[in-house]
Amino acid sequence: MSDAAHTAMWERLDLDIEAHDALLAVLGKFYGDIYLAQEGRLKGAEYLDFVLSEVHGLRIKELQDAKAAGKKIVGTFCVFVPEELTLAAGAVQVGLCAGAKAGTELAETLVPRNTCDLIKSFIGFKLARICPYTESCDLIVGETTCDGKKKAYEAFGEHVPMHVMEVPQCKAPCDRTLFRAELVRYKEALEQLTGQTITAEALAEATKVVNAKRRALQRLAALRAAEPAPISGRDALLVNQISFYDDPVRFTAKINELCDEIEARITKGQGVAPAKTPRLLLAGCPMAVPNWKLPYLIESSGAVIVGEESCIGARNTRDCTDETPGNLDAMLDALCDRYMKIDCACFTPNTERLDNIAAMARDLKADGVIHYGLLFCQPYAHEAMKVGKAMDAAGIPYLSIETDYGMEDAGQLKTRVEAFVETLA
Amino acid sequence: MSDAAHTAMWERLDLDIEAHDALLAVLGKFYGDIYLAQEGRLKGAEYLDFVLSEVHGLRIKELQDAKAAGKKIVGTFCVFVPEELTLAAGAVQVGLCAGAKAGTELAETLVPRNTCDLIKSFIGFKLARICPYTESCDLIVGETTCDGKKKAYEAFGEHVPMHVMEVPQCKAPCDRTLFRAELVRYKEALEQLTGQTITAEALAEATKVVNAKRRALQRLAALRAAEPAPISGRDALLVNQISFYDDPVRFTAKINELCDEIEARITKGQGVAPAKTPRLLLAGCPMAVPNWKLPYLIESSGAVIVGEESCIGARNTRDCTDETPGNLDAMLDALCDRYMKIDCACFTPNTERLDNIAAMARDLKADGVIHYGLLFCQPYAHEAMKVGKAMDAAGIPYLSIETDYGMEDAGQLKTRVEAFVETLA
Repeated sequence: MSDAAHTAMWERLDLDIEAHDALLAVLGKFYGDIYLAQEGRLKGAEYLDFVLSEVHGLRIKELQDAKAAGKKIVGTFCVFVPEELTLAAGAVQVGLCAGAKAGTELAETLVPRNTCDLIKSFIGFKLARICPYTESCDLIVGETTCDGKKKAYEAFGEHVPMHVMEVPQCKAPCDRTLFRAELVRYKEALEQLTGQTITAEALAEATKVVNAKRRALQRLAALRAAEPAPISGRDALLVNQISFYDDPVRFTAKINELCDEIEARITKGQGVAPAKTPRLLLAGCPMAVPNWKLPYLIESSGAVIVGEESCIGARNTRDCTDETPGNLDAMLDALCDRYMKIDCACFTPNTERLDNIAAMARDLKADGVIHYGLLFCQPYAHEAMKVGKAMDAAGIPYLSIETDYGMEDAGQLKTRVEAFVETLA
Repeated sequence: MSDAAHTAMWERLDLDIEAHDALLAVLGKFYGDIYLAQEGRLKGAEYLDFVLSEVHGLRIKELQDAKAAGKKIVGTFCVFVPEELTLAAGAVQVGLCAGAKAGTELAETLVPRNTCDLIKSFIGFKLARICPYTESCDLIVGETTCDGKKKAYEAFGEHVPMHVMEVPQCKAPCDRTLFRAELVRYKEALEQLTGQTITAEALAEATKVVNAKRRALQRLAALRAAEPAPISGRDALLVNQISFYDDPVRFTAKINELCDEIEARITKGQGVAPAKTPRLLLAGCPMAVPNWKLPYLIESSGAVIVGEESCIGARNTRDCTDETPGNLDAMLDALCDRYMKIDCACFTPNTERLDNIAAMARDLKADGVIHYGLLFCQPYAHEAMKVGKAMDAAGIPYLSIETDYGMEDAGQLKTRVEAFVETLA
């Protein structure tokens, strides 16, 4: 696809071409520094590089082609939005831009200053007209997982077509009933949007597609238990990030190829970092593209990241949906069961998350845990304190970091991370 | 009650006597400056002064006497906890200390620094052992109305006996079903606590008691439409604050007496401020005792407050519970209906709040609206922006203030309030 064709497409999407060009230039530079400069990368990373280089290009062209063929595009920000239903309705589900500072001043006309950068980002991307995903969407699905998003969607909904799913706050039977009703309401919204009835056959097929993607990501996650670490945390994070953007069938095939290569590498005892490199588990808030600041700081401080305990990581891929139910009602029950297992900080209590982190640290042979909290994210800020106590009790070294999308604190963070890594060596 | 008897009681409650004495000294000074220094106060304010002077004394003695007689004490922080059920179980419901900076450093060992002062306050009061209410409680009832409280109760629950009610985030039928189930769960928790079954008769009687309190507060609220304003905003706020602490039957009688006096004053055309004094509606976050900073700043800037659109104000008193249902199930339905009407910022959407504010401003003949947001309270920070737009559209002058329990910003706030009031004169 030529530059001119790209630009013509972005113009049709009514992007601010100048601002968007500037964004892509920064993104390209950032990607080069953080990703392309890595040594000993896997061959399969070429897929990641290609997807990233065309994330606003060819992938958007595919979405436009799908729209021209009558398909609908559904944008999301959260792992509670069931891709199984979206695909079963013949629609395409994509994540939306939320990982970089953009349009902050505009965003602050809609949401308070003391709002986390992820929320300000998706609003800023929309108001500044620089996210081709948002502009391609026929529907954007929000959820009530935190006060910030819940209330931001009220303002955001004045600018985009929104559907908000209610996610309950506890896991009692009445909560399950509520979320089950919300799944039906989402199903109906999709049917209205697409004009297509969601059948048991379509949902069974879609569930297989989404589960296959999860299994590929689970396979990758498990391989990272190898010593030395066979893939950098940055690349593994990127795989998880791309899982929200790329076509799920193509993505699954590519990640399984990548896993084949990793297995061969493990057999040969090869890795991306020398043996005895301190291994870290990164836990906490999701890191949307291109929020690579902390992983880069960690991996340029003499450590390697071996797992991501976050929504863009294990929280999204740990559980598959039961594929055995034979009718639609039972399938919706299975979906409800699967999504109600998510150990999101929106739940009270959410003690299973503490167990999951300890299990991940053990299984991945992590030498320590770094908790990443996004400034003004209250649910994960509270849990960071609980995780710290749980790690203390388990004897696992722990560092809690709170930061945002700015680069002002990079030097200070690096000093803290280096000091932590030194204690592990 | 003698000072020695007070102290002996506080010692039995295991309060930190020295820290508690210091707190009472500050509170007394603060009350003198803000309340007793007012001119032309109502005679009925003597009741308020007395309750406040004995808020940690005689009222606590009453609670201890009730406990000795086998009654249970239930502490709350939120208008979603149904006092009807608490009273029907033969228990006493009281609000807990949450309106002053206390034990902040201790609180920050349990909750993040970026937590609102209301939450830090109730945790700090507990950890510093200076709230005789918290120490008198047999059960403390929390709710999931915001991320901050929802997650803070997890940590708080390690220090006090907690029951957390889930408040849903929308107002669809499945949300009503969830809250109905939570009412039953609370009823069962009360029955377990008190060993007393909640009967239809007891609930009918309790509903009458609570409704009578609401009607007295509604009566007071309506009288404030008079010009000149017949009661200061500070005193009216104090009435609402005391409604959470004092015995409901005594309180109702005293407030009705106060209203009689106000009616007589209105007949004579008397008020607390000269005619033409700018009249303001205060909207937003709750102000727990002794959070009188902003009302004092406003009323010492040449304005008078004529209404409180907050949980310690109209949000708690606007609706009564239907007293007509004849059986327990129908009564629980009626309770559910009443509580699901609350226009809390925890709901999405919550557009009825905008209508309620505009209606209050009109009915109370307010010249402007000041929105009070507590720093780090995300739900009300979002709504402050929406209220601002709604007031602009309605042509009502509007000022949004975000502050905390500290006094550092008092000068700056006064300057802003004075400038706002000048535009109204």
